[in-house]
Amino acid sequence: MRLYNSAVSGNCYKVRWLLSLLGHEFETVELSVVDRSDREQKLGGKTPFLRVPVLELDDGSCLPESNAILCWLAEGSEYLPSDRTARARVMQWLFFEQNLHEPNIAVVRFWVAYAKNADEYPQPVEIRTAAGNAVLQTMDRHLGENRWFAGGNFTIADIALYAYTHVADEGGFDLKPLANLQRWLADVSDRPGHITIDA
Amino acid sequence: MRLYNSAVSGNCYKVRWLLSLLGHEFETVELSVVDRSDREQKLGGKTPFLRVPVLELDDGSCLPESNAILCWLAEGSEYLPSDRTARARVMQWLFFEQNLHEPNIAVVRFWVAYAKNADEYPQPVEIRTAAGNAVLQTMDRHLGENRWFAGGNFTIADIALYAYTHVADEGGFDLKPLANLQRWLADVSDRPGHITIDA
Repeated sequence: MRLYNSAVSGNCYKVRWLLSLLGHEFETVELSVVDRSDREQKLGGKTPFLRVPVLELDDGSCLPESNAILCWLAEGSEYLPSDRTARARVMQWLFFEQNLHEPNIAVVRFWVAYAKNADEYPQPVEIRTAAGNAVLQTMDRHLGENRWFAGGNFTIADIALYAYTHVADEGGFDLKPLANLQRWLADVSDRPGHITIDA
Repeated sequence: MRLYNSAVSGNCYKVRWLLSLLGHEFETVELSVVDRSDREQKLGGKTPFLRVPVLELDDGSCLPESNAILCWLAEGSEYLPSDRTARARVMQWLFFEQNLHEPNIAVVRFWVAYAKNADEYPQPVEIRTAAGNAVLQTMDRHLGENRWFAGGNFTIADIALYAYTHVADEGGFDLKPLANLQRWLADVSDRPGHITIDA
């Protein structure tokens, strides 16, 4: 398999981590998250979205969208339950991650730490920072009553949510007051097979 | 089943439509998308997110997040393929919808047409309108080569993407130049079992 990848992207990190957990061998094609001038050349015809990650399978077919790739890879494994309602618990957190977490926390991190143009977007940064902090508080409350996001087991919901949470400080988010979130971050990073984003 | 609902929400419309297509009977509990003061009272303990839709099953368990509800309801039906790669095609569009379509097109529609406070957010409206137009162009290109989003069959990917696309004009988005999108909107609304957002 071949992963169209960016080293600093949390969305790509999710996929590298699950590929590693499942023991898949893969090669990477690196793209920049800042200079996007080669997107059409490298990704044209492979994905309608021209963004990473894209997982190219051995038969040449290409899967885009990080959480869709996680679902595809995890099918039949311990990381995605087959029970219909247990699976819905995983899915609710995967959609929450892409709808409220990534557009706020990852985008502010990108502006602050990578594009370095946050001062050009004062009101968007203010709105997305407030929304991102509300997201982190929602996660912290849930983790006060649940060891993992989708209940009793570590799943792709934890992988998806860990990706941009553990680097949220790069966007100016303060995780220190959130004790349940800190406990979960430590539990995730202590798990066998955990890899770091810069591995 | 009981649906915690808002009549004008595209996310809730998706669920009402699929419940109707599948022949499920349900009652609704109505919440406002503008006055959110009763969210904790009506949704507390049912969902970590305090937003609609939430589908309460007959056993009392509650499913939040519109696209997670679509996946749960569609399991085993013609609207969600069981083949692993065909399913990944549906999932890629569901995640795209929640990550790029809804946060841009639905949020601008909300500010313009419902909260009526778009003038308070000039730069966010400008950024999200540009991103929303790029989303609509991506959809239009894809529909130039595909009858439905996930390939040969109408699926929950079409339901999810139709919800806020067909009312995007309420947020100031101009769909008229997008011929493939117009063809698809007509094909969707002509399907047996189609219901309107105000049905």
